[in-house]
Amino acid sequence: METLGYYNGEIGLLDELRIPMNDRACWFGDGVYEAAISENYTIFALEEHINRFFNSVALLYMTPRITKIQLAELLNTLVHKLDSPAQFVYWQMTRGTAPRTHAFPEHTTPNLWVALKPFILQDIYQKIKLITVEDTRFLHCNIKTLNLLPNVLASEKAKQAGCAEAVFYRGNRITEGSHSNVHILKEGILRTAPKDNLILPGISRAHIITHCGKLGIAVDETPFTLEDMFGADEILISSTSSFCMSASHIDGYHVGGKAPELLRQLQDALLEEFHRYTQSTVH
Amino acid sequence: METLGYYNGEIGLLDELRIPMNDRACWFGDGVYEAAISENYTIFALEEHINRFFNSVALLYMTPRITKIQLAELLNTLVHKLDSPAQFVYWQMTRGTAPRTHAFPEHTTPNLWVALKPFILQDIYQKIKLITVEDTRFLHCNIKTLNLLPNVLASEKAKQAGCAEAVFYRGNRITEGSHSNVHILKEGILRTAPKDNLILPGISRAHIITHCGKLGIAVDETPFTLEDMFGADEILISSTSSFCMSASHIDGYHVGGKAPELLRQLQDALLEEFHRYTQSTVH
Repeated sequence: METLGYYNGEIGLLDELRIPMNDRACWFGDGVYEAAISENYTIFALEEHINRFFNSVALLYMTPRITKIQLAELLNTLVHKLDSPAQFVYWQMTRGTAPRTHAFPEHTTPNLWVALKPFILQDIYQKIKLITVEDTRFLHCNIKTLNLLPNVLASEKAKQAGCAEAVFYRGNRITEGSHSNVHILKEGILRTAPKDNLILPGISRAHIITHCGKLGIAVDETPFTLEDMFGADEILISSTSSFCMSASHIDGYHVGGKAPELLRQLQDALLEEFHRYTQSTVH
Repeated sequence: METLGYYNGEIGLLDELRIPMNDRACWFGDGVYEAAISENYTIFALEEHINRFFNSVALLYMTPRITKIQLAELLNTLVHKLDSPAQFVYWQMTRGTAPRTHAFPEHTTPNLWVALKPFILQDIYQKIKLITVEDTRFLHCNIKTLNLLPNVLASEKAKQAGCAEAVFYRGNRITEGSHSNVHILKEGILRTAPKDNLILPGISRAHIITHCGKLGIAVDETPFTLEDMFGADEILISSTSSFCMSASHIDGYHVGGKAPELLRQLQDALLEEFHRYTQSTVH
């Protein structure tokens, strides 16, 4: 198959599959999701994504019909149905299908969705441009929910400005990107926003911190500001689909570019880990 | 028909109709909605709801494929397909159907959804119980979007506590309910939160303000606090589906009940207007 949509066991092409209008995704965005990438039909960091997924599920008080192991098996089975061995692997759980009422419906169970499509990893060493956008989101950003409108609006604003990503600030504090985490390198130290309810705890973020440990780079997980970012040696954007990229411009101002070797070490380590992991698996 | 689902011209029973998995409602909650009620196959305050709907649509930068008049005609046609003359009339517009990317998709047009079901107006004169919940929502509450997770969680919390509605407070300020506006009567004055980005400008709220004018009740649209609410003569909850109800308890404390005649005047005026409007229309 070229693409794959899955809904509670039903399978079809992603742009052909239909789901019930009464799924609570449709009325409330009442669900959570995850996205990973695969290479060589191997989903990278799957266990970490599934752990975060079940954490999101629990934070919304949903009771899954599937275990972590069953979900991993399902995803590993589904990726093999696609022609392409390199995929964007997306899944979500919604609270259920029921007539629309705000409170949780009784007598319903969650719905499981999967969406697979071919994926080409972009050149992560290229420089990207960013804009800053005020963070007007809710206070549940640690949960990977389907309530993504402010992220959508910020991402569109970045696109309109010819930029790759929008960086959110709340007051003076940098929180994260519209679909990424944001970090800075300054005087050999990596600074990244702390894990609280204002950011999603990124899987790539966690890997960057681990690699910093191995590379002898100190990590400071205290909030940093707009001024810190503009004055940083390098500005890093991390996400599942691009690992770690660095910025050349923010809001039209030239930024970063002052610690290229440290940046390259981190990027190399992330890519090397990805390729080693996905090539080592036996099929 | 007992219920009716409509999606871009396709019609079916609400619990049978299916929609494309790639509708952006499913991935992002990327859409806006309205809900009204009908009696005698007549949708109450339809023009006001449609005006607010098009305002929500514009605030999300969507370009409708339908005019206000065409939408009104469509809704007025659809309500006649239902067996019941009294209905909950819901519609929404989503940004379109496209492969999942945060920024707006190109080459797509918005999708129009309608959901109709029988509706029984409850006794609005009964007293209800409320709980208070911290308002953790985003700063776009003036737009009637499908990003409703905090509202869902608050509504469920109210239900678990045996209450009819949750009242949000942000800092010390009362904003609104999880699916209603909140007002208080104190010393003959109606206090209601101002129309800003922290509340939805309710249609019933607007009607209450109009009726206050006719009844000689002064209206104060400046923020009021938790303390103001607990000390009020009456606490009013207004929404499209219940016009205006009053609270006997908040968080288990007995409240209100000190201005029953003023409250009754308002409630009578709202109900009388509704019945007059829906009975006067010729079919």
